[in-house]
Formats: sequence, structure tokens, C-alpha cells
Amino acid sequence: MIVILKENPNPGQLQDLTAWLKSQGVEIHTSHGQRQMILGLVGDTSRLDMDLISALDIVDEVKRVQDPYKAANRKFHPEDTVVELANGVKIGGGHFALIAGPCSVESEEQICSVALAVKAAGANILRGGAFKPRTSPYSFQGMRERGIQLLLEAKRQSGLPVVTEIMDAAQLPLFEEVDIIQVGARNMQNFELLHALGHIRKPILLKRGLANTYQELLMSAEHIMSGGNSQVMLCERGIRTFETYTRNTLDLTAIPVLHKLSHLPVVIDPSHASGRSWLVPTMGISAAATGADGLIIEVHNDPEHAWCDGPQSITPAVFQEMVPRVHAVRQALELEKEEGRA
Amino acid sequence: MIVILKENPNPGQLQDLTAWLKSQGVEIHTSHGQRQMILGLVGDTSRLDMDLISALDIVDEVKRVQDPYKAANRKFHPEDTVVELANGVKIGGGHFALIAGPCSVESEEQICSVALAVKAAGANILRGGAFKPRTSPYSFQGMRERGIQLLLEAKRQSGLPVVTEIMDAAQLPLFEEVDIIQVGARNMQNFELLHALGHIRKPILLKRGLANTYQELLMSAEHIMSGGNSQVMLCERGIRTFETYTRNTLDLTAIPVLHKLSHLPVVIDPSHASGRSWLVPTMGISAAATGADGLIIEVHNDPEHAWCDGPQSITPAVFQEMVPRVHAVRQALELEKEEGRA
Amino acid sequence: MIVILKENPNPGQLQDLTAWLKSQGVEIHTSHGQRQMILGLVGDTSRLDMDLISALDIVDEVKRVQDPYKAANRKFHPEDTVVELANGVKIGGGHFALIAGPCSVESEEQICSVALAVKAAGANILRGGAFKPRTSPYSFQGMRERGIQLLLEAKRQSGLPVVTEIMDAAQLPLFEEVDIIQVGARNMQNFELLHALGHIRKPILLKRGLANTYQELLMSAEHIMSGGNSQVMLCERGIRTFETYTRNTLDLTAIPVLHKLSHLPVVIDPSHASGRSWLVPTMGISAAATGADGLIIEVHNDPEHAWCDGPQSITPAVFQEMVPRVHAVRQALELEKEEGRA
Amino acid sequence: MIVILKENPNPGQLQDLTAWLKSQGVEIHTSHGQRQMILGLVGDTSRLDMDLISALDIVDEVKRVQDPYKAANRKFHPEDTVVELANGVKIGGGHFALIAGPCSVESEEQICSVALAVKAAGANILRGGAFKPRTSPYSFQGMRERGIQLLLEAKRQSGLPVVTEIMDAAQLPLFEEVDIIQVGARNMQNFELLHALGHIRKPILLKRGLANTYQELLMSAEHIMSGGNSQVMLCERGIRTFETYTRNTLDLTAIPVLHKLSHLPVVIDPSHASGRSWLVPTMGISAAATGADGLIIEVHNDPEHAWCDGPQSITPAVFQEMVPRVHAVRQALELEKEEGRA
Repeated sequence: MIVILKENPNPGQLQDLTAWLKSQGVEIHTSHGQRQMILGLVGDTSRLDMDLISALDIVDEVKRVQDPYKAANRKFHPEDTVVELANGVKIGGGHFALIAGPCSVESEEQICSVALAVKAAGANILRGGAFKPRTSPYSFQGMRERGIQLLLEAKRQSGLPVVTEIMDAAQLPLFEEVDIIQVGARNMQNFELLHALGHIRKPILLKRGLANTYQELLMSAEHIMSGGNSQVMLCERGIRTFETYTRNTLDLTAIPVLHKLSHLPVVIDPSHASGRSWLVPTMGISAAATGADGLIIEVHNDPEHAWCDGPQSITPAVFQEMVPRVHAVRQALELEKEEGRA
Repeated sequence: MIVILKENPNPGQLQDLTAWLKSQGVEIHTSHGQRQMILGLVGDTSRLDMDLISALDIVDEVKRVQDPYKAANRKFHPEDTVVELANGVKIGGGHFALIAGPCSVESEEQICSVALAVKAAGANILRGGAFKPRTSPYSFQGMRERGIQLLLEAKRQSGLPVVTEIMDAAQLPLFEEVDIIQVGARNMQNFELLHALGHIRKPILLKRGLANTYQELLMSAEHIMSGGNSQVMLCERGIRTFETYTRNTLDLTAIPVLHKLSHLPVVIDPSHASGRSWLVPTMGISAAATGADGLIIEVHNDPEHAWCDGPQSITPAVFQEMVPRVHAVRQALELEKEEGRA
Repeated sequence: MIVILKENPNPGQLQDLTAWLKSQGVEIHTSHGQRQMILGLVGDTSRLDMDLISALDIVDEVKRVQDPYKAANRKFHPEDTVVELANGVKIGGGHFALIAGPCSVESEEQICSVALAVKAAGANILRGGAFKPRTSPYSFQGMRERGIQLLLEAKRQSGLPVVTEIMDAAQLPLFEEVDIIQVGARNMQNFELLHALGHIRKPILLKRGLANTYQELLMSAEHIMSGGNSQVMLCERGIRTFETYTRNTLDLTAIPVLHKLSHLPVVIDPSHASGRSWLVPTMGISAAATGADGLIIEVHNDPEHAWCDGPQSITPAVFQEMVPRVHAVRQALELEKEEGRA
Repeated sequence: MIVILKENPNPGQLQDLTAWLKSQGVEIHTSHGQRQMILGLVGDTSRLDMDLISALDIVDEVKRVQDPYKAANRKFHPEDTVVELANGVKIGGGHFALIAGPCSVESEEQICSVALAVKAAGANILRGGAFKPRTSPYSFQGMRERGIQLLLEAKRQSGLPVVTEIMDAAQLPLFEEVDIIQVGARNMQNFELLHALGHIRKPILLKRGLANTYQELLMSAEHIMSGGNSQVMLCERGIRTFETYTRNTLDLTAIPVLHKLSHLPVVIDPSHASGRSWLVPTMGISAAATGADGLIIEVHNDPEHAWCDGPQSITPAVFQEMVPRVHAVRQALELEKEEGRA
């Protein structure tokens, strides 16, 4: 940590600061600039409160040299995390997740038929929303408990593991048989929820907030991981920009950057990012070519009559055409792990 | 609602659409443009799902003419909402809230002494955080339950009503004696929490998310109000922009715009917006001059040793100098209600 | 064009408006909504000033149904524009541009050796800056006229066509032998410059501004094309977002969207977008997989001693490794045109 | 300047770096952190190229401690700059500019009648656009040379000094008798234009770009000032945010921050910021309460028939009601300089 002092600091306050820093077990290296003095702090600075030091009268600025995240940091965990589901499906470290299914669970017939269709096309995980965060209180809010039951029925019929979104820690008992719990973009900094998910032992798919940075996403993963749950997957689903043609702007640079900063798998959601079904295959293939560990795609057998997010859902037929192109770019770039994985 | 069709729509699909719209009780006015056909829908369109219609193959775009919020809408409720607290303090409709206190409750001595100091300086409501959303899991997360107890002790000693933040609906039982419940910016779209707050009868201070629009803020208010709780105050606390000198960018235009769109009171938080204590008085006065219904200001008796957010807290002495200037601009602009209010 | 009137419009003003619209040769279709009246305008509305109509007392909102760009619009020009350079190199319509070279021209030895190196690695166009827009007046501003001369010397030695940036119309005489003139992101809305470029007959590489939308980029292309110069290429080079890890955020969705809206070629600049050399190959390959018509890459033989933008330049050796991977994804996705093009 | 090295730097490269830095006349203070080594550079570091050092293999990050702007920096010029026009009008240091007039000059009758009206209402400077930057090439682009002539006629008739926008250095000869030259937001980083304006001796009103930071604005001022022209005024006119209700978002915090960082006057443009005439008086008053040195307001005698930007223009009558409220808040806050100024 580097502390840049204001010009001509009060000597008494400076002495107080250095004495206090030493009492915290930190060594101080002082540099005298032309106008400003700089303190280099050496030792375990993770417990020092940057804000507190910044607030001091004599301090101009405080800069951290080390990353504020530890459990999620590749520096301390060089190998890729591979998330492994009950039925053998793996994600990360060369294993690719092809997650597909409808925005919302609507009926047993709908979710089961989509499950079988996406499985036939090559998906290895089924998605389907039961609790739906909606901007308007007058929109469909999801089938909730009943939706989870129908999703689990589709899991039984198709054999696919399932992922679905949680909106409040109080809903956790309903997620017993769910394979991956999704945290939505709007809840990325719902810290009470993250803490609750840190105390279970189930994979979490953590979506990046619409206006959040890579570091904030990693800090939210850290909130989960600091509770002991290390099975976290990061999901980029589009960020808010000034562009209005698409719903959000997909940030594919997140893939190599998150892979460098962290060992956690990175999954891309081109459906929510673009909000337009015709863009989904192109951007899904693009994400695969950029090194994503998985895709999560909205597929609906009848997008024109979907209860929500219809405009961004593709049909099983379009999904089926997309899958071989995803594999083709992965093979062309030699991103494929040896054959034989679920 | 206006539905703009693609060029040369399939006649069968068009007939299906118009038949279905009529079955929903909506009247259709058709305009034939040079290249595109436009349907004007008349009647109660609030139940029509824009997304569903947008998804149709033959539809290019759907535009709503009416606002999607009702309970919060000034069109249907022309008079200002005046929030009235148990002890007679009013907010809105010319009544001004001067909310002050520390970022976090740290000890009985601290919260009580700040409470008395800000009351003496002219504050009529006390703030203090017990549950603290923090980006890092390694930072101080607030005194939680014990913090609420100390805040209520400060309420007893000072006579000031109190506002403090909730982070999860499960915490509600602790908020029985709290006068105003705050929803933080990161939870603005935590819809499960908003729904829970819609079912109680206590004023809510709803903070705008860092990258959310006025309409999204009003829709979140609508989530609360649709549950029956009409005592909602809107709070602008800075939005995320590309500027890094300040923590966030205070959007004061929110005041006249929210007042035009809605009847709810608008409170401004210049402390979180700027993140720098020296900016707080200037921007607080500016907010008052723009017609805010209240200010929420971080005041700490010892900002240099505050447990969090020290850099943006002002001392009671600075607060005391600021208050008369707030009233001076309100008087100069004749925003003051007649004397005699709490 | 659709004009949404305010509730209860003044009848006299309404009559004035409809009379005036008719005098402009526009037909009017009126729809009466529950609360608001809507006018659908049919005919050539391109000359109607939306702002003027919006300003009218009785008007609530005006919406354009048709795109405001014509020359750049794919609707009126369905085939891909193929830009063809003097020496036979083509860009667009399946022809791929691999543009490489240093940020700045620094010396004859430097630009010529880089030219030969990138040509050997597979580049078909050379880039090199002579006029450099720099945030600070104290930074190196480019070799200017002398830089252009050295770039042309490199063109002679390597046989590669060249692209370089113009900053003011007064510099045009120096660009006689330059093959493609680049307009930088900061000048995307320097309309006087765009108009001057509309009156020459030379290909233009128009970079998207840091906070501009697709439509604004197309409107700037329209400024050039309305002068008669139809050889415009669009270049996405990263947009400003809240992420600070990268210099900007590369928006690859721009590729399919601009291809849908326009017939102009789309070139991607992963160097400026990321600002970090290790990201350039990955994001360049990703852009190729997304369907870009070309890449513009900063390559420097000695990035550690480059006069500017060193951190984002790759070496010729890294470029050489990247090129076959670019072609591999294009082949895997069948984006390659038949062999035999320059 | 602080240079943070990567872990375990190559010793040979480190020796090269330190030798080179010493050869640049800079002293080096080394701190050894737990994982990383830090170099504190002391001396005149303004000539060191941060980018070049950042690019080195062994360097992790470079941070500047000192501001990159000098001429515009209050540290080196503690007194407020007061811009003084030929006819005695002053701006800055307590002197307030009330600039008003139409978006575009449309006719002699129009500009002269508005000039007399705004003068009568209390304006001390006249604005009026002759060269108009417009997103569309098909919109009205201003009366250009003829517009300047009519504006100067209005100057003669009213006695008010005038401000108008330049779009290209080649237009400078037309601006001989113009009192203040405006650089528009889209040209804030048109460095060739800024350099040309640095070589004349006439006050410049420099508008902040839509997505630019305070520091970038000050660096653009520095581009002008480094040429010798010290009469620069900074103008905040709204930044681009995700809010679409207003045209842009007015950032009033810019006023105290720019005043702290720089000695240059700060003028606020509430008309372009909001894009809605009903917001202009409120936000203009708010800007005055925040300490602005001036306002620039669009006033049109017939906003409904203005050739551009009608929706954001107010009438002379509304302007006349606004002016005393601007002075009232300035008096209430004791921002007014003693009487007697032009």
C-alpha cells in the first residue's frame, strides 16, 4: 500500500500516523518527492482500512498495490477451478458448459419438451427461471415454487442437471435438488444473499451487474468464497452502455481478463446481452472463440408466445445449427479438452 | 401503445395479431406509412406484454405512450405526498427533512453524542448504519442488531426519529421502532425485499441505483406501493459516470424531473455522491436550491477515525455552518413552508 | 413519423399543425387513444425537422419510424460495399483487411523494417501515425509532414498500401499518395473535416467515438457520403465504460449490427480497445470469428521503446503467431472468400 | 511519479531502467514491498513518458503523483482568472456572466430583437450560433459567414459583446470582431483547432465533451494555454449518462471541483444539458447557487419556430423571470461581488 501525503504535512499528525502504522505490524519506507512525501507500507496490509487512512487530514491519496481479493485470485490458486456436477458434467479447465433452456418455466409440457430438444442439440445443462426479477410489478414474476418443481421434473425426464435463479436467501430450501444456483445481475451486490450462498456447498453462477467492474464482480465472488463455498462461476451477460440498439453490450474482453485475474470459470450469456434473438448465435460463437468456459442460451420452442424475454430467445432449430459452429471454432483454436467428458 | 410492423408483414400472422389484440379488449387504429404499417392500440393496454408483442415475427417495434407506473405517477395523484413521522416531522409538500448522522453506528457514546450535536445544529432526523453493504467481505460489515439497539437509544436520548438501512427482509423484525427504513442503492432492484416492504406500513427511503434511470427508480417505488405502502421517499445519491475525481456524480436534475413525474418526496444525499467531505456543504446547498424535499448528510464527531466512509463525513461544526445557508437559499427562492412545522 | 400529442390539445394549434404538415406534402393518419391523440405522417418525412415539431406546445413526443441515414443504409443498398485500393487489395464482401504497423512513425529505419515484417507475417495494409492526437500538449504529437513522407517510403519499399490519420482538412494536400485516410475517434463528429473528406475520392476509415452509438457512427459516415465519397469503412476501437482494467471496452456486437444496418465494411481495432498487448491476439481472433471485415493492429519492432502507445503494441513475432489463428477461425466459420484476392 | 514493478523483475532490465531514469535527471527512492518493489521518482518528471515506462516488461503500473496540467492548475496560479472583454464585462473572481441568445442566428430581425430583449432582462453577453454542428447532414447547418455578420449587427445595435462557435481553424478570419470564441463539446479534443486558438489573444469558451472527465477538460484547456492564450473559460453543458429523460445530465459538482483544481472561470449551460425548456430556469438557478461564474442560456423569441434546438429554448419572458432569482440566490449565499461591474 502506498500513502501519498499532502504537501507540508503537520509533523505531529505525521508522527501519529507512522506510530499507528507500525503498531499494526507494517514497515514503512519513506520517499521524499519534490513536493510530496510518499510512504510505502510493507507487510500484511489487508487489514488496514484504506478509507480510514484516506480520511486523515495529512493524506492526499492511498493506493493499493495488491489485489483486494484472495480466494478468487489466480496468484494464490494458479490452476483453473473445475466445477463438477453430480452427474459428471464439468465446467472450466477446458471443459465446456452448454447451458440452454427457456427464460421462464411456463408448464410441464413446455420445460420438458425444451429440455429434450436442447439435449438432443448438444446442451449439457438445462436452464429455466422460476423466480423472475422484473422491472414492473405488473409483469409475470415467475411460477416460483411450482416452477422449481417443474424444472426438476424436466431434470428427471432429460437427465440434464439444472440451473435456476434465487432471489432471496429464504428461498434456499426449495433449491435442494437444483444443481447450480444462479445469482442475477441485479443481486450481484446483495451481500446478505451472497453470504448465505457462501455457507452452502453447491455451485453458484454469479452474474455481473449491469454497471459493475471486473474487480467488483470478483469481490462479490469473494463474498461467497469467504464463507467456504469455492464452486463459483462468473457470468458476463452484457453491461449497460449508451448503445440502445441492443439491450446491453456484451463485453467479451471479460473472458481473457477474468481468466488472468482469477481461476474461476467464465460463462457468457449472449441472450440477455443482446436482447435480440438473431444476434445470439453470432455472439455465442464469438464468446466460444474468445475462450469462454461455457454459454448460457435462452431457447424456447415458441418464442413468439414466451411469457417473458421472447425477443431474445432462439428456437431449438436455431440452437441446433449453432452448436456445431461453437465446437468448430473451439477445435480450430484448440480450446477443446480431450474427448470423453460428459 | 403503438405497434410498428415490419415491411410486408405476413397477412396470416397480421390477422392472428389483430384478432388476439381485439380479444384483449383493445381497439386498433391502423395507419399505412410509405413503407411500414402502424397499429395504434386504444383501451387498457397496461396488461399487454410489450415483450411478447415485440417478439412477433412481423413486429418491428413497440412503443408505450403511457407511463408504466401508476401508484407513483403524479398524473393520477396530483398533490404532493407528505410523509409524516410518529413525532410530527413531515417531509414533502414544502416540509424539509434535514437528516444527519454517522455512516455507521460505532458505540453508544458515539451515536448519542452525534445525535445531540446534529439536533442542536438543526437536524430533524437521525441517520446511522447498522447493516452495512461493503464491497469487500473483509471490511467492517456494521454492528447489525446491536447497532439498531444503539441507534434506538440515541433516538430516546435526542428525541429525533431515525432512519437506517435494511439489507434483507429477514431483518424486518429488528426495525419495529425504526421510523424510516432505507433501501440502499445496490438493493434498488432487490424485488423480494421491495415486496416485503410493500406489505408493512412504515416510510421507506428508496435510494436510486448507481446506473439506474428515473423510470427504473419509479418502477422500484411502484413495486413497494403496489403492495399497499404509499409512504415512499425517493433518494438521489449520485450515479456512476466516467468521472473518477468524485465517488459518483450527483444528478440534481433528478429533483425537478421526479417532482414532475411523481408526487413522492425527493431527498438528496451529497455525502455518498461526492465521497469528499469538502464538497458536501456546497452540494447540499445546491440541492436545496434545486427544490429537494430533504438532505441526508453524513456527520461524524471524529471523521478521521470513523469505521467507514470517513472521507465523506463532515464534522458537527461544519454541519452547523451549513444549515443556515440551506435555509437562506430556500428562503431566497420562497421554498419554505409557513413556520410552525416540526 | 409519429407525432404523439399532449392531452386535450388546443384546437386552433392542432389545425395549424395539420395544415402545415399537409403543405409539406405529408399525409396524416389520426388515431384517438384513450388519453392521447396520435398522428401518423406518411410520405417523404426526411425534410421535416423533428426538433421543430417536438417544440410545439401541443406535442408530447415525436418518433421517427425510418432510419435517418440513407447513403449508408443497407435497405437502399443491399449488397456489401467492397473497398478496392489502387494495388488491388479489397476490403468487405468477404475480403479481409489485415492492417498492421506502429502507432507512430518514428524513423525511416523503424517504419520500413516494421512494414517488411508485418508483410512477411501476412498483413496486406500498413498503418503508421504521423499526426497524433494526444491528451497532453507536452506529449509527442507525431512527426507530422515528415512522418507521412517516411510512411510513403515504407509503402514504396514494401509494396503495401498505407493508412494514416488526418486531424484537420488543411492537411489534405499531404495525403495525396496515402491509400486510406483515417478519422480518429475524437474527430468522429468533427463535421467540417467529414465534409472535406466527402469531397475527395479516397477510402476513409472512420473510427467510432468513445461514447457514440451505432446510429451516430452511421450519421457521421452519412456526412462523408452525402458529399459523394462512398468509400467509407467503419471502425470499432473500444468504447468508454466503467471498466478501468482495460483502456476501453471492445464492442464486438457492433460487427453484426453494423452489417445489418449498413453495407459498409467493419474493421476492428483491438489494440486501442484493450490498451494491453497481451489481449490483442485473443481479441483480434475473436473479432474475426464475429465476422469483421478487417483488423487494424499495432505492431512495433521494439514496443518497450515506442514513442507512444507502447503498452498496446505487439511484436512482429506475436503478430506472426496470431495471423494463422485469425485465418483458422475464418475458415472454420466459412467466412473466407475464394482464394486469389490480393 | 511512482513505478510499481512486477514480482521478481529481471535484474538486467531493472539496472537498465534505473540507469536510464538517472540519465533523465531523476532521483530514485526504492521501497521493497512483500511481493513487489516500488520506485519513487523525484525531480522534474513532467518530461518522462508514462506510457513508455508502463510498456516495459518489468513494470506493473506507473502512477503520477502530480497533476499533468500546469498552466490551468490553481497550485501554480492561486488567484482566480478574471476574463475581461473589450467593453468592460468581466467573468470570474466574483463577476458573473449572463449569456443569452438563440441557438442559431436566423435573420437580422430575429437576432437583433432577441439581443435587445435579453439585454433588457439583464443579460450582459449575447450568444448566437452561425456554424452549427449537427448530427445529420440533412439538418440546417447554420447561416455560417452570413450568421456571423448578423450577430455582429446585433452587437452594434445592442452594445452586448458576443460569443459564437467555431468549427475549424480555417474559419478564424471571420471571428475578428467576435468577443468570445466557443469550442463545442464535440470539438473538445480537436487538438489542431485548440492549438490554433492558443495562438490568438481572445477569450475562449471551452465546452466539456459528453463523456470527458474534469482532467481531460483541463488538459484541453492546457492545449490552448500552452500556446500562450490564457483567457480560457470552462463550460459544463451536461454529460452523457444512461438517463434518457433529459438530453444529457448536468454535472454541477464540476463547479466546486474545477474551481479547486483550476483558476479558470466556470460557466454552466443548462439549456443543452437538459434539452427541455421547462428545466432551464430551475437548473440555471441551481448552478448559480453552486458558485458558477456564469450561465449560458438559449433564449428565442419564438421557440416553436426556431430552426434548431427549439425544445430547449426559453422565451425572453421566462428569462426575465429567471434573472432575479439567479441574483437572489447569489445574494443569499454572498457570492455577489460589490456593485459597479459591467
